[in-house]
Amino acid sequence: MKKLKVGVIGAGRIGKLHTENIVNHIKDVEVAAIAEVYADRIRDWAQGLGIKNVYEDYRQILNDPEIDAVLICSSTNTHSQITIEAAKAGKHIFCEKPIDYDLDRINAALDAVKVAGVKFQVGFNRRFDHNFKRVRELVREGKIGEPHIIKITSRDPEPPSAEYARVSGGIFLDMTIHDFDMARYLSGSEVTEVFAAGAVLVDPEIGKAGDVDTAVITLRFENGAIGVIDNSRRAAYGYDQRVEVFGSKGCVTVSNDTPNSAVLSTAEGVVSEKPKYFFLERYKESFIDELKEFFDCIINDTEPSVGGIDGLKPVIIGLAAKESQRTGMPVKL
Amino acid sequence: MKKLKVGVIGAGRIGKLHTENIVNHIKDVEVAAIAEVYADRIRDWAQGLGIKNVYEDYRQILNDPEIDAVLICSSTNTHSQITIEAAKAGKHIFCEKPIDYDLDRINAALDAVKVAGVKFQVGFNRRFDHNFKRVRELVREGKIGEPHIIKITSRDPEPPSAEYARVSGGIFLDMTIHDFDMARYLSGSEVTEVFAAGAVLVDPEIGKAGDVDTAVITLRFENGAIGVIDNSRRAAYGYDQRVEVFGSKGCVTVSNDTPNSAVLSTAEGVVSEKPKYFFLERYKESFIDELKEFFDCIINDTEPSVGGIDGLKPVIIGLAAKESQRTGMPVKL
Amino acid sequence: MKKLKVGVIGAGRIGKLHTENIVNHIKDVEVAAIAEVYADRIRDWAQGLGIKNVYEDYRQILNDPEIDAVLICSSTNTHSQITIEAAKAGKHIFCEKPIDYDLDRINAALDAVKVAGVKFQVGFNRRFDHNFKRVRELVREGKIGEPHIIKITSRDPEPPSAEYARVSGGIFLDMTIHDFDMARYLSGSEVTEVFAAGAVLVDPEIGKAGDVDTAVITLRFENGAIGVIDNSRRAAYGYDQRVEVFGSKGCVTVSNDTPNSAVLSTAEGVVSEKPKYFFLERYKESFIDELKEFFDCIINDTEPSVGGIDGLKPVIIGLAAKESQRTGMPVKL
Amino acid sequence: MKKLKVGVIGAGRIGKLHTENIVNHIKDVEVAAIAEVYADRIRDWAQGLGIKNVYEDYRQILNDPEIDAVLICSSTNTHSQITIEAAKAGKHIFCEKPIDYDLDRINAALDAVKVAGVKFQVGFNRRFDHNFKRVRELVREGKIGEPHIIKITSRDPEPPSAEYARVSGGIFLDMTIHDFDMARYLSGSEVTEVFAAGAVLVDPEIGKAGDVDTAVITLRFENGAIGVIDNSRRAAYGYDQRVEVFGSKGCVTVSNDTPNSAVLSTAEGVVSEKPKYFFLERYKESFIDELKEFFDCIINDTEPSVGGIDGLKPVIIGLAAKESQRTGMPVKL
Repeated sequence: MKKLKVGVIGAGRIGKLHTENIVNHIKDVEVAAIAEVYADRIRDWAQGLGIKNVYEDYRQILNDPEIDAVLICSSTNTHSQITIEAAKAGKHIFCEKPIDYDLDRINAALDAVKVAGVKFQVGFNRRFDHNFKRVRELVREGKIGEPHIIKITSRDPEPPSAEYARVSGGIFLDMTIHDFDMARYLSGSEVTEVFAAGAVLVDPEIGKAGDVDTAVITLRFENGAIGVIDNSRRAAYGYDQRVEVFGSKGCVTVSNDTPNSAVLSTAEGVVSEKPKYFFLERYKESFIDELKEFFDCIINDTEPSVGGIDGLKPVIIGLAAKESQRTGMPVKL
Repeated sequence: MKKLKVGVIGAGRIGKLHTENIVNHIKDVEVAAIAEVYADRIRDWAQGLGIKNVYEDYRQILNDPEIDAVLICSSTNTHSQITIEAAKAGKHIFCEKPIDYDLDRINAALDAVKVAGVKFQVGFNRRFDHNFKRVRELVREGKIGEPHIIKITSRDPEPPSAEYARVSGGIFLDMTIHDFDMARYLSGSEVTEVFAAGAVLVDPEIGKAGDVDTAVITLRFENGAIGVIDNSRRAAYGYDQRVEVFGSKGCVTVSNDTPNSAVLSTAEGVVSEKPKYFFLERYKESFIDELKEFFDCIINDTEPSVGGIDGLKPVIIGLAAKESQRTGMPVKL
Repeated sequence: MKKLKVGVIGAGRIGKLHTENIVNHIKDVEVAAIAEVYADRIRDWAQGLGIKNVYEDYRQILNDPEIDAVLICSSTNTHSQITIEAAKAGKHIFCEKPIDYDLDRINAALDAVKVAGVKFQVGFNRRFDHNFKRVRELVREGKIGEPHIIKITSRDPEPPSAEYARVSGGIFLDMTIHDFDMARYLSGSEVTEVFAAGAVLVDPEIGKAGDVDTAVITLRFENGAIGVIDNSRRAAYGYDQRVEVFGSKGCVTVSNDTPNSAVLSTAEGVVSEKPKYFFLERYKESFIDELKEFFDCIINDTEPSVGGIDGLKPVIIGLAAKESQRTGMPVKL
Repeated sequence: MKKLKVGVIGAGRIGKLHTENIVNHIKDVEVAAIAEVYADRIRDWAQGLGIKNVYEDYRQILNDPEIDAVLICSSTNTHSQITIEAAKAGKHIFCEKPIDYDLDRINAALDAVKVAGVKFQVGFNRRFDHNFKRVRELVREGKIGEPHIIKITSRDPEPPSAEYARVSGGIFLDMTIHDFDMARYLSGSEVTEVFAAGAVLVDPEIGKAGDVDTAVITLRFENGAIGVIDNSRRAAYGYDQRVEVFGSKGCVTVSNDTPNSAVLSTAEGVVSEKPKYFFLERYKESFIDELKEFFDCIINDTEPSVGGIDGLKPVIIGLAAKESQRTGMPVKL
């Protein structure tokens, strides 16, 4: 079988990760080209992976008729524009989240995808995590009955710089957005109301930048369920990623992954391992699995499970959360 | 040493429990009399415990100069009135929660206690639970730093009758009130804002009675922390009582108690025990320990850790939650 | 119903415990008398519990026709002799373990019990522990199929004095004897071979006293299963009491009980509680439940589940373990 | 840097695994050739991995001066002979366990390695497992003090065919050999005595083949510690791999890895995941990490942590266990 040819646009941390995952873990797919504005910085790395073409301009990838699909890993403000161009060029698209922070631009991008009839997947990798996927399966199989309460704990090990908080759109759009996606995924239902209670408890600089670093967000869902997300920019013990879905027949929870299962009991106490600290380590397999699904969808002509609507909805919820935090009032969607 | 003499007012489930706990577990305290409107129903039981005096009218207890203290375990609507009378009679008072649903009547009762200078303790037994007490200790010792997020899961194994929901004041006043107390206890801070998102997902009859059976309640605290309580009237797997306090230096969680630690691994899966099902079983020791503290306070002339203000505040929060649920808006206290 | 009248013989730690448990927790049973060679030491304590008769000579109990049953809690070397006398006096007998270290004396005691037709129960309280009892139930119900491997971990928090080790019969007879009983109980089968590998790793004085303080004992059972017990006289983290039964259909394990379920996660690690430290705390309920069974057997004229043979067999195994340790060879029973 | 060139000898399950791990996970190392007696069966597979040379005769690898190192993955009876030839050819050697079942042949192989001065590593991959490695680290760091008791549970999900049991050398040499290595690794000490209690409880055919399928093996170590291994050829719930080291200051345990951390609580019970079922899945990372160490040792001219003596000793222990099982007596080494 002819290998699927892929072009990667943007070789920052996530672009490099995807590239290496394809090279090392995904058969029948070839990274044919990489586009990076700072192309010189990545030539050695690309060569080491056996990738021949390194461009400064992503249009060279779009113009290459050999290339079947692109991974858009460039800076967020370019996602929607490149999506539109890639769709017009007939390339299947894997786009890092978020598509954009502007709803009009997202819709324009999704329209272009629709018109072109190409595959479109958004990089919500956590849906492919072994723990969360299992929760979703159990919910879907009816093991907990009708979902009543969805709980998501999502805490980062270290806060970003206040500078980042200023340009990222804030905690609800750069961090909680993953949890909004998870809330839709786990509940199998759409969010209809958001109430965000935020506070600045971790870093006053984040507050000065107009953002919060700690938040509890209440969600209401179309199916009647209620959700709650709690976020912190800094969990001293590492990356805290747990979910719980409670329903009419029971409850399913998942706990954090740890580097090993060692438990040390001494006169001082019983000590076990902290959660895996870094998101790349914690979600390692999920990054591979989301790409596998994307390429399978192209090869088998099926729809990605994380499509355009899944890129749009969390941004809508995130903007509503931002408004709720600003006004102190719940916001209906 | 002369034994402390106690009169128990009201011998329903909780009055009987307290009585038996004193007889079986607390030395130096004697249940000298019990008042119960349906006195005939309890004479055999009282005799079996060696209790001589069984009255229909609680005033006989208040008028007995030999009696040092009373336990008010009668129906809720009588608590504040009997508190006032008992205070005037110079009896130390252990009052079952809630003192009342009416703030004026609570204040009147607390004023009477103050004037009389008697000890007054409210029956928030969960503060004496081995798990929650340990969380409070760790928070107080600064082990988790400054509290940022307080999470309380509190789900009952079975819903009450819709009839009960109608007269009890509703979920926020009969069930969540324990969690409001726990929130104050764990955070060491007062609640300043409440937002309650409730739903009827367990029993439509509860909805018809004007109440909800599922709720997520967001709290803001004076110290800046944010809290969240999730309630359900029916957890299929039993009585679900967990808390988590997350702070600047770490996080402490407690899980449910189980009847035993057996884990059975077979081809079908790995199965462990469900939580203890019934609140009397789950909180067994805490009911004894709260009485021990009460009697110690009398003997040593110290103040009960769960005093009048602790009886008042949760009712204030509960009423606010009720209003928030009604209006759909957050309520400031 | 007339209360059962009991006489307690020997009021050391365990005699006092049983007495208090009856007074506080067991209805319909009255401690009518206590015999203790140092009677003066216990008069205040007995009076506080409302026990009228305190004797120096246990024969006063045996001669009292009002007394239905005795608890033999005196020093080990008197157990068999008092058992014989009590049986002749027609008293039902609860005898602390071990009955004796001499097989002939045990057999003589059991013969006397048989002739007299009185109830006889041995104080192997761990059979009444919530965890181990549940394991036994699951094994009996066939949940793990046929038992193949029985594992018992039993480690004390602190070693006894070397002096005690010298007079107690040694680790296999004073400590492992409980595990030998547990092995028979969990497997539902008799031990046919013992191999004991002991070492002196905790306290050289114990070695000088001719005993070991660390041991791994392999057992073979009549039903083909293999067992292994590991003992230490000193677990730095507390009292370590776990069992595991593995069989053709699965495996059941139980872990240690802890004072609470708090888990503290900080930058330093994830810390939870150590096991309950002291055997009286760990096995608290089991001491009450074994007496309840004994009295129920008397009242309902049924046989105690821990009878004479259950007192005899662990001593036989213990003596074999001692010989195995001495010779370095397995010993067949 | 020039890539290290490796030849793989034997492309059965384990040879294929190592080959794919090098190709996909290990940079700077190239699989230059593969030798396999059934070469035709693997040509497509090898081509897919970009491996050019596929030979029937392993001598073609040994004769290739470009090749730096070999992985001996052929059938056990050829290991020692190929080791000798590879050593003479100056190749560094990674040899699958066991080197041989005959001590003279092992010694001859190790002598050849010594004379040639090549690196030699044995494939005891479990030493590289995240859990067991952590236990070893904690022991080495003195966190548990002096080791007193080492416990290893090692149970397979499915028994091998009786035919395999007949030719493999039996349970102690094909299965427990991994645990004997683990015992030496965890204790940091040599075994001085073995007592094996085996039984046929899983499959009578295994018994007819002269082997046992269930075993408890007691070990004594030079440093005074006592060890115990329990084995079963069939754990209904999957691959059971746990260890525990208990010492003067405490105890460290590790539990099984599971596919995810989901816990489902319903009216029926609390259910969690079974252990990972298959050894390739359970020990996935360890297979990669042992090769990384091997290649690092070549590149940096250091000694592999699992050297010749580590290949020899477990076979000595295994043969002693076999004799102990046969005679029913402990065997000193």
